[in-house]
Amino acid sequence: MVQFVDVDAMRRWISHEGVEPLLEDLVAYLEDDYRRWEQFDKTPRVPAHSEHGVIELMPTADAELYGFKYVNGHPINPSRGLQTVTAFGVLSDVATGYPLLLTEMSLLTALRTAAVSAMAARRLARPDARVHALIGTGSQSEFQALAMRRLLGLNEVRAWDVDPAALDKFVRNATALGFTVHRATSGADAVDGADVVTTCTADKVNATVLTDAMVQPGMHLNAIGGDSPGKTELEPAILRRSEVFVEYHPQTLVEGEIQSVGADFPTVDLWRVIDGQRPGRTSDDQVTLFDSVGFAINDFSALRFLRDRVSGTPYATEIDLIAEPTDPKDLFSLVSLAPAVSHR
Amino acid sequence: MVQFVDVDAMRRWISHEGVEPLLEDLVAYLEDDYRRWEQFDKTPRVPAHSEHGVIELMPTADAELYGFKYVNGHPINPSRGLQTVTAFGVLSDVATGYPLLLTEMSLLTALRTAAVSAMAARRLARPDARVHALIGTGSQSEFQALAMRRLLGLNEVRAWDVDPAALDKFVRNATALGFTVHRATSGADAVDGADVVTTCTADKVNATVLTDAMVQPGMHLNAIGGDSPGKTELEPAILRRSEVFVEYHPQTLVEGEIQSVGADFPTVDLWRVIDGQRPGRTSDDQVTLFDSVGFAINDFSALRFLRDRVSGTPYATEIDLIAEPTDPKDLFSLVSLAPAVSHR
Repeated sequence: MVQFVDVDAMRRWISHEGVEPLLEDLVAYLEDDYRRWEQFDKTPRVPAHSEHGVIELMPTADAELYGFKYVNGHPINPSRGLQTVTAFGVLSDVATGYPLLLTEMSLLTALRTAAVSAMAARRLARPDARVHALIGTGSQSEFQALAMRRLLGLNEVRAWDVDPAALDKFVRNATALGFTVHRATSGADAVDGADVVTTCTADKVNATVLTDAMVQPGMHLNAIGGDSPGKTELEPAILRRSEVFVEYHPQTLVEGEIQSVGADFPTVDLWRVIDGQRPGRTSDDQVTLFDSVGFAINDFSALRFLRDRVSGTPYATEIDLIAEPTDPKDLFSLVSLAPAVSHR
Repeated sequence: MVQFVDVDAMRRWISHEGVEPLLEDLVAYLEDDYRRWEQFDKTPRVPAHSEHGVIELMPTADAELYGFKYVNGHPINPSRGLQTVTAFGVLSDVATGYPLLLTEMSLLTALRTAAVSAMAARRLARPDARVHALIGTGSQSEFQALAMRRLLGLNEVRAWDVDPAALDKFVRNATALGFTVHRATSGADAVDGADVVTTCTADKVNATVLTDAMVQPGMHLNAIGGDSPGKTELEPAILRRSEVFVEYHPQTLVEGEIQSVGADFPTVDLWRVIDGQRPGRTSDDQVTLFDSVGFAINDFSALRFLRDRVSGTPYATEIDLIAEPTDPKDLFSLVSLAPAVSHR
């Protein structure tokens, strides 16, 4: 039997544990895995692009565990009442190839994306950072705000979205969560005075959510919406002023902000910063940019974290996903009508 | 909600419908998809190799549907009471990115592998073929025998396996199924007088299950066990005497028998034979070889077939795998404890 965490169980688990404590604990799992980055099988995720979106598979493995996530990105979806991003994932035993855990990952992806952002920002934002600007207030936004508060203490949020209803929703949620919220009147207004700027918009275009003129010395840019070919958020001039940090260069080069500046543009592997091999921010007036696209190891950490926390609890049920004939070479016995053959 | 077919439902469905009728109907689905081969997104499957096996993801898509299979191959597994191959798969809506169907695919893979073998053999075996040799009598063997009987009328089976218990099992099952069975004493004995030879062994080595001397003019070879780098079954000299048919050359070149003879070795795309663009067998003394490794479109056809047949029946239940907040941009509402926020 395979352990299974459905949406309702995930919802109850997160609600019970609390988003902020979970984000903090998940960052610890991420840091453990980033520190042993070289132990993983790594490959760019495998996309299937279509007119309105993309479906991707994101596998990775260490010597003991294999994980993958299925995730779509369809910016058109909210206009028809659907999620832009849905996801599920599986953790398996490398030794047997058997799946161990199947879980919803729409909610878990929101947690892991926010945790990765905060893990990076902890090394890349100024130590005295206080104000967080959020451009794009869709499904990821509250999780991003909470992660930056929990890990960096940013309780002041300046938010902007081109969709007034999405902005209202964020202001309502963030106010209820105790943030000091500024409902911005433009992207420029949101960014004005911010120490950390998160861009998390969904449109699949080469957008200019952030212009070079909006970026001030000392800012940390957490660019998570540019994550697919032809889907970027920053004016390319910003990259040339910034120290750019990436998860996995071969994938980011195709999907991230750096797709606009080419393969020889210098970047720093985030894992080397987490591991202490490379510095994060080196001066107060440096502009740092985390060109986040979402890499399979992020999901692996989230799957590992989930398994450790919910195994043996009522949040994990079981599903019948593995055929188990009495004689392992007699798979046919499961479908044979011959009375002498035992069924499972 | 996503439709879900678990192992028990699959077992009951196959038992109720009967393996042979299902194989025949599945071949029709496969042929439909092979005839429109050029409409699919195609990519070699994505493997994660480890000491004792491999875990693979096999995605493909047409304009409407996306499908992928997770499958492992661990030849060591039966020695510890486990299946060599386990699998599950998903069919999704390309327009929304949402999963539609999640299903066990260990049993379904056995059906689809046998159906693909028979689909090929129908074009590649001699029309007067009567005797089927099977080398390797593990989980796939009964399905292979039934497909060759249903689609080609091969009721005489000569079987061999290095594991006497597996051979006993096959002889018992095949006899109960009404086959005329010869329990061979060696691979050479099994192949002697056969018209169609299926090799379906599991060892991850460059084996010589079939030597050049065992192969007679007019034979059709259905080589399904050589399906991974370093995992082949045929003496390379056999390839040089044969017309070799493949599913998807870029994948077969890495995983199939042709890995031993290199990229410039001529092969014929099976889909072109199914579509009538290329001949299958062209003479009675030709040796034909289907160098089968298993391609994603095979699984896509099986998923499509399953969905058409079990949707709306008790074999398909529902699984809660997609987060559905009332406001699609308010994913956070699902985990918020604020009483004013609605839960699903």
